[in-house]
Amino acid sequence: MSITKISSQRSFDGSYNRFKHQSQVLGCEMTFGIYLPPNMESRPSVPVLYWLSGLTCTDENFMQKAGAHRLAAELGMAIVAPDTSPRGEHVPDDVDKSWDFGHGAGFYINATEEPWAKNYQMHDYIVEELPALIEANFLVSDKRGISGHSMGGHGALICALRNPGRYLSVSAFSPITNPVKTSWGHKAFSQMLGDNIQKWREWDTCELISSAQERLPLLIDQGAEDEFLHSQLKPGSLSSIASRSGHVANIRIHHGYDHSYYFVASFIEDHLRHHASALIEG
Amino acid sequence: MSITKISSQRSFDGSYNRFKHQSQVLGCEMTFGIYLPPNMESRPSVPVLYWLSGLTCTDENFMQKAGAHRLAAELGMAIVAPDTSPRGEHVPDDVDKSWDFGHGAGFYINATEEPWAKNYQMHDYIVEELPALIEANFLVSDKRGISGHSMGGHGALICALRNPGRYLSVSAFSPITNPVKTSWGHKAFSQMLGDNIQKWREWDTCELISSAQERLPLLIDQGAEDEFLHSQLKPGSLSSIASRSGHVANIRIHHGYDHSYYFVASFIEDHLRHHASALIEG
Repeated sequence: MSITKISSQRSFDGSYNRFKHQSQVLGCEMTFGIYLPPNMESRPSVPVLYWLSGLTCTDENFMQKAGAHRLAAELGMAIVAPDTSPRGEHVPDDVDKSWDFGHGAGFYINATEEPWAKNYQMHDYIVEELPALIEANFLVSDKRGISGHSMGGHGALICALRNPGRYLSVSAFSPITNPVKTSWGHKAFSQMLGDNIQKWREWDTCELISSAQERLPLLIDQGAEDEFLHSQLKPGSLSSIASRSGHVANIRIHHGYDHSYYFVASFIEDHLRHHASALIEG
Repeated sequence: MSITKISSQRSFDGSYNRFKHQSQVLGCEMTFGIYLPPNMESRPSVPVLYWLSGLTCTDENFMQKAGAHRLAAELGMAIVAPDTSPRGEHVPDDVDKSWDFGHGAGFYINATEEPWAKNYQMHDYIVEELPALIEANFLVSDKRGISGHSMGGHGALICALRNPGRYLSVSAFSPITNPVKTSWGHKAFSQMLGDNIQKWREWDTCELISSAQERLPLLIDQGAEDEFLHSQLKPGSLSSIASRSGHVANIRIHHGYDHSYYFVASFIEDHLRHHASALIEG
């Protein structure tokens, strides 16, 4: 459970820190960022929002670009941003070094097929190993929220849906809602999970939500000018299924916005307040 | 005066746009970013804050990392972020390709020595060509503020001090206040301005402020843990000279903060409000 500090920077009177550690689950060294709000000692309980980033990102993109520290400091919330896949020279990567599979594209699932299964166990890392590490090493509570962008929005949704009780709040920006029906999902799932599509469905938000018992209030933001909206993200499918299944899903489509972090930054305040209402005020 | 759009992205209901244009002053193609607040048409007058970035930066760093769009949208202020030097294969660069001279390090001065003089005329670009271009192409007023970080903080201060009446407000983060006495300044000024130190003094805030007639309210923020504080930045020198010369300089030293954009983001709201009080409410 040991972690090594890489850097620490003051931000909005709190601190943004990067750590590395040896992951047992992933079989490689991993890096994560953690924003700690000011006055940790004097707060009764600091909850943790886990942020999962999208394809090609590392632990750094969200912390640099989302403008989330300001409100996390004000609300008294920690934010943890892990990397998006296992990494290292010994960790298999896509043969073509493409940007949508392999390193930087773990899809937050547990691979069953080799050569991926040995390292690509991102679901278990995010849901089990990382929170245990965070809660053992920082003055935070076990109240957890989860959010993310694109592949990370998919990750947040499947982690919450597969693990009732583990998260008190969930939200997503521009999530891949139905990967079994899109090319990103096909490419990753066929290699990591094999040819049996029944197995893919266990990692698909639209499939999972129809049978989920837990009713977490769900906030999803999507840009109307997002270049991946119709081909990869499909929020309309999720909206229909969630509504039929009795889930309270607040899915907002925003005119003019694209897939970038400028979109995330524009609405991150609403997401942090959504999580705070479950994690702090709740 | 023609400009070509590279990209446009919605951000906080306004838009962040990047343009390129052929600069007559610099003799090369230049790129700049401009944030335009929402509802431009219905506002009587949108002032422009010019942001000058530091060593190694391009037009993009501030726009991605400072979290400034939120408040610029709320206040109704445009922000223009130019590049930090002329660029292009035909533009001379440091022989050693170092990070503190040449491309990415124009120091916002007008070079007099060759091979630099032909392109490195960043002062005239920032003060004259760029505002003329902005005011001809966008629905903005001629009310201008100027700010920046590190080398760009130096740039903001010398542009304001050398051009009374051109800016209604000025501020800086971690500025190089006294380049004639530091190694960054020596390296750049000796090559771009030659050996006569008298000429260097015309581009040094501590030298300029002692004889400046205009009294602009000056906000300067500096991190106490900034690795360049004592070697390159020297806010104490500026504080003494400004005070002796009767300038109202609010120089704040912030415990724990470093030289990064996390520091800038933490206090950018104060700077935007400082500028708004002169540009909008004034």
